[in-house]
Amino acid sequence: MTKNTKVNAAILIIGNEILSGRTQDTNTSTLALWLNSLGVQVNEVRVIPDIKKNIIETLNILRKKNNYVFTTGGIGPTHDDITAESVSEAFGLKYEIHKEAYKILESYYKPGEFNDGRQKMVWMPQKAQLILNPTSGAPGFSVENVFCLPGVPSILKSMLGGLKNRIVGGEPILSHTISLRTVESEIANSLMKVQEENKDVEIGSYPFFHAGKLGVSIVLRSENKSKINDCNLQILEFVNKKKIEVVDR
Amino acid sequence: MTKNTKVNAAILIIGNEILSGRTQDTNTSTLALWLNSLGVQVNEVRVIPDIKKNIIETLNILRKKNNYVFTTGGIGPTHDDITAESVSEAFGLKYEIHKEAYKILESYYKPGEFNDGRQKMVWMPQKAQLILNPTSGAPGFSVENVFCLPGVPSILKSMLGGLKNRIVGGEPILSHTISLRTVESEIANSLMKVQEENKDVEIGSYPFFHAGKLGVSIVLRSENKSKINDCNLQILEFVNKKKIEVVDR
Repeated sequence: MTKNTKVNAAILIIGNEILSGRTQDTNTSTLALWLNSLGVQVNEVRVIPDIKKNIIETLNILRKKNNYVFTTGGIGPTHDDITAESVSEAFGLKYEIHKEAYKILESYYKPGEFNDGRQKMVWMPQKAQLILNPTSGAPGFSVENVFCLPGVPSILKSMLGGLKNRIVGGEPILSHTISLRTVESEIANSLMKVQEENKDVEIGSYPFFHAGKLGVSIVLRSENKSKINDCNLQILEFVNKKKIEVVDR
Repeated sequence: MTKNTKVNAAILIIGNEILSGRTQDTNTSTLALWLNSLGVQVNEVRVIPDIKKNIIETLNILRKKNNYVFTTGGIGPTHDDITAESVSEAFGLKYEIHKEAYKILESYYKPGEFNDGRQKMVWMPQKAQLILNPTSGAPGFSVENVFCLPGVPSILKSMLGGLKNRIVGGEPILSHTISLRTVESEIANSLMKVQEENKDVEIGSYPFFHAGKLGVSIVLRSENKSKINDCNLQILEFVNKKKIEVVDR
């Protein structure tokens, strides 16, 4: 893969606790920021329940449409942790004891503590590559372009460092934010003109309330720094003309 | 729809800012908790970019698979707000000025302030039903089983009250949480047995770190209160046997 190719990914959040609203997902944002820094753009996120059929079907769609798929959740020791088994079926691979993972956990736990529940965590798709876990021992794994991570945010975060060299991204996606003390409707027309003249830059407009005041953040995204700079100047031009205040955000 | 039918929904989050990781989505959790309280179960969440083709395709899949679809984002005044236009195309409806929405915004703004940008917000699919906005004037809308809400969380929240009577749910989904001072692997086998004997209750197991201590929350979900109670007793039985502490969480 050359450095100029656009590289994309999907995130698959597996977990009834997100769909019930009980737990607020934060892994999407963590993974998306990290992937962007590696030059990988997230095209799609899906949240699905702990149902094997759904996991297999969704995974088989996403892994064919995207360069990478990252799953979160469902790799712990309890009955509702069915990600490894589902990934095995999706790829038509045996679901079996991963010898290296077994050794890692056997030496991680005190003698006698590597019980049945914990041993479930070393069952993986045949020939899975491990993703090491510096926080709580139990590794994640990858099969081809699918990377399976845990759902607990602090553990997931701690595993990304060791994964970095296995992801080949394209040009990093650069972004620049201009925050303004205004409302969207005041700048909508001018901003649309700038977007029309700068088709290679993705221009987003996001209203905010901060410290009791309204504002709008304009976010410019592109792989090309000089295109972002051109776009930025055109925006500052109409901002100055309209006497809109630029603020920190 | 009788009260015993299972009623389900999908949530469609439209917005590059979520996919880039810049913004942390909180609307999923807000909508899911609210829908649960109305007896509607969320089956799936998707996050997609501000691309018309993606929005149309995804919406046409989700609205046929689910009783309800809730979209968030893309109904403001700027060039990247393309939800209303996309929904019109998805349903094969005209995209036109909604007279009632026009009147609402005309009287909401001071004379002279209802400018071009703001007028964009009254363009909707033909015969859309409005969803009133007590916070910032501009209404959302619904077409058949698709409900389009804004992306700003505080505005979205303020619009749900007015929407309640338009959603017909099934039996409310009840839930009960038991939090334990233990780790998942200590209870995995016992919990699996309880799940096998109580197939109508969805049992989730979620590790947590709180105030520096590890624990596990077990969440029981069902429409049937007595089934939850039975399940709860069976769990407390093995918890007592194993001398595991029950904690508040």
